[in-house]
Amino acid sequence: MASPASLRVGIAGLGTVGAGTVSLLRANAALIEARAGRPVVVTAISARDRSRDRGIALDGLRWHDDPLALANDRDVDVVVELIGGAEGPARRLVEHALGNGRPVVTANKALIAVHGATLAASAERAGVALAFEAAVAGGIPVIKALREGLAADRLLRIGGILNGTCNYILTAMRESGRGFDEVLQEAQALGYAEADPSTDVDGIDAAHKLAILAALAFGRPVDFSSVHVEGIRSIGALDIGFANELGYRIKLLGIARHTERGVETRVHPCLVPIAAPIAQVDGVFNAVVAEGEFVGRLMLEGRGAGAGPTATAVVADLIDIARGSLVPAWGASSGALSALVSVPMSERSGDFYLRLSVLDRPGVIAEIAGVLRDCGVSLRSMLQHGREAAEGAVPIVLVTHETSEAAMQAALEKIAALDVVLPRPTMLRIEPG
Amino acid sequence: MASPASLRVGIAGLGTVGAGTVSLLRANAALIEARAGRPVVVTAISARDRSRDRGIALDGLRWHDDPLALANDRDVDVVVELIGGAEGPARRLVEHALGNGRPVVTANKALIAVHGATLAASAERAGVALAFEAAVAGGIPVIKALREGLAADRLLRIGGILNGTCNYILTAMRESGRGFDEVLQEAQALGYAEADPSTDVDGIDAAHKLAILAALAFGRPVDFSSVHVEGIRSIGALDIGFANELGYRIKLLGIARHTERGVETRVHPCLVPIAAPIAQVDGVFNAVVAEGEFVGRLMLEGRGAGAGPTATAVVADLIDIARGSLVPAWGASSGALSALVSVPMSERSGDFYLRLSVLDRPGVIAEIAGVLRDCGVSLRSMLQHGREAAEGAVPIVLVTHETSEAAMQAALEKIAALDVVLPRPTMLRIEPG
Repeated sequence: MASPASLRVGIAGLGTVGAGTVSLLRANAALIEARAGRPVVVTAISARDRSRDRGIALDGLRWHDDPLALANDRDVDVVVELIGGAEGPARRLVEHALGNGRPVVTANKALIAVHGATLAASAERAGVALAFEAAVAGGIPVIKALREGLAADRLLRIGGILNGTCNYILTAMRESGRGFDEVLQEAQALGYAEADPSTDVDGIDAAHKLAILAALAFGRPVDFSSVHVEGIRSIGALDIGFANELGYRIKLLGIARHTERGVETRVHPCLVPIAAPIAQVDGVFNAVVAEGEFVGRLMLEGRGAGAGPTATAVVADLIDIARGSLVPAWGASSGALSALVSVPMSERSGDFYLRLSVLDRPGVIAEIAGVLRDCGVSLRSMLQHGREAAEGAVPIVLVTHETSEAAMQAALEKIAALDVVLPRPTMLRIEPG
Repeated sequence: MASPASLRVGIAGLGTVGAGTVSLLRANAALIEARAGRPVVVTAISARDRSRDRGIALDGLRWHDDPLALANDRDVDVVVELIGGAEGPARRLVEHALGNGRPVVTANKALIAVHGATLAASAERAGVALAFEAAVAGGIPVIKALREGLAADRLLRIGGILNGTCNYILTAMRESGRGFDEVLQEAQALGYAEADPSTDVDGIDAAHKLAILAALAFGRPVDFSSVHVEGIRSIGALDIGFANELGYRIKLLGIARHTERGVETRVHPCLVPIAAPIAQVDGVFNAVVAEGEFVGRLMLEGRGAGAGPTATAVVADLIDIARGSLVPAWGASSGALSALVSVPMSERSGDFYLRLSVLDRPGVIAEIAGVLRDCGVSLRSMLQHGREAAEGAVPIVLVTHETSEAAMQAALEKIAALDVVLPRPTMLRIEPG
């Protein structure tokens, strides 16, 4: 019998993940061939700087200065897009490859979150795969778990810790008692945070991933623009300490819920009970929690970033393509997706944590409690310590019973306007985890 | 356009999982059709008692008294085997269906662990699927995660909490301080343990599942006979308490490791550090931990049994078949599996916990310590309390440094033979988790 034809791979972008993918395909070539049923080999490359040392040999690979050329290369069966970014060359390459009838594997969460619906429709027209396991939670095969493993169930909730940089920072703040800025600098020095950290610490990266998870979980077109996004810059060492004292951990969570009114998607820091499984997920680890009507609660935990974990996801997609598997990008064909609406953040309700810096004088608590009562916000507990937050001011922490976002926002505005309350109260949501 | 043909399903065995599968296919019919690309409908059934009320309507389904008839029914495209047992009608049905060129979905861990290699070869010859997601860890899509999601990586370790009954019993013992027998009776009354609990509490069920996971993880033929198996009957309330005091939880773990000498597979109770993620998995939950060269450590946690979770796994396999996906049962064709050998238990080494009941007289500790020294076993710590285990006896607990199984077994034999040591010392292994 003739040996089966190789799957010939063209890779655009040779950063950490690109170089990791080349290394993995070489290191595990025999094993990958056994599982794919045929060899999977890199034949062409496109990257910005031909001379940079990436720790991998590039001899024998065709080099294209223009990534679009990969999509036209006759010796490329599948295009791997690792350039990044929702627009520009990444988007043009993926559109062009699908238009040319080439399957695409990408790790690009921004592109898939923003243009995933249109791109999936192109892939469908061409009858080829658009695969993006590496776009969410690195080495955790969560896309496959949702799209295939849990395909029979109606999911009620999906989300979790989707950004390792933020989880590293929050964990290090808790363990060391240091503030956000100092820990961020350390994370940058260690390579866990980018020089410009805003995509991570402002929650945008997590929001891209959450939009993708929510689309898969609820079987509806991906909708990044509806995700409510808040980052972790406002979290202080005081909050970490108070949360601990109250029996919580602070985590940046992505949360998508299928409610009676539609789909709620939001990324923000929250307090979760220390006993919740997700509260135990520390450092650079990611964790995805899913809850389905029949399957109950599932949690998948692992490394959400890095060359090795992300490369395993890229190559798993390549193996699926080599095997001839063809599952629609969003789990069902574009025409079979549901028309579930997005629910605005203002319709959420839950418990809240509020930290205020107040002037240390009699009657302050009564004044604040009065505002909350007038806004219909009911208090569960209050913490006050002598610790000084600023000259003549003391921090107090209030925890509410279940309250609507609208009521809480109204109360917060009134409280912030009180003379006895110093600027910038911190409001955090409490979630079951 | 004509609507695509339905996938017609014949189900053998209408116990909890069978009835759950029928319910799930009906409750989520539209969603399953969208994801499968065509309707998935039950057309025929075989079960022992036609008159029993299972809480589901069976009108319009063809009833076969003989399960083998399902494999011959022309209106059945895929056979779902939910009878159970490694031999007898379950085995005959699966062999017959594959022989007839019908794909098979099964939840039968015993059958797959014992005959999975032969059955996979039959499926391969027929060019049809043999799918068994439901055989391991119920609703957790761990088979798919290993066979496809982690297909690119070389795994070093796989295992975890694979039996919910044992985990429930151990958790309840810890929480209530009660003994094994009392908690087992309660578990039986609650339906978490069978009337004959031996498959669960003696570790056999976990061993079936571990054999399947190890075959997938390491890409070699399934080998149940090499799994070392010990159950949890010897665990006493005293052990749970001592473990806690030492900073550990007692869990029944399945552990498979790829070592330099081959593959080590074992199921036994062990002490894991309280801080290890797997130590936090309580009650009826299952958790699978995988560690790969590139992907690092992953943990998948969820409900390992029950009608709902197991049915989601059965139907996910049906959706794959409806979509036309065809991945070899063991991740690679039979001819491409590796010839890794199994390593006997005697070659394991690690830390040990040893609980003895000794006569309360001077010199006892010195005598025991002498035996350990002579056998080359080095002590890490010792606990002794005044608590009476029996008339005139006190319990002592020894924790060793890393020791080989062989040395520990030799030492244990000599210690048990000492006059000052009362019968039945308890030896437990300590694992990193």
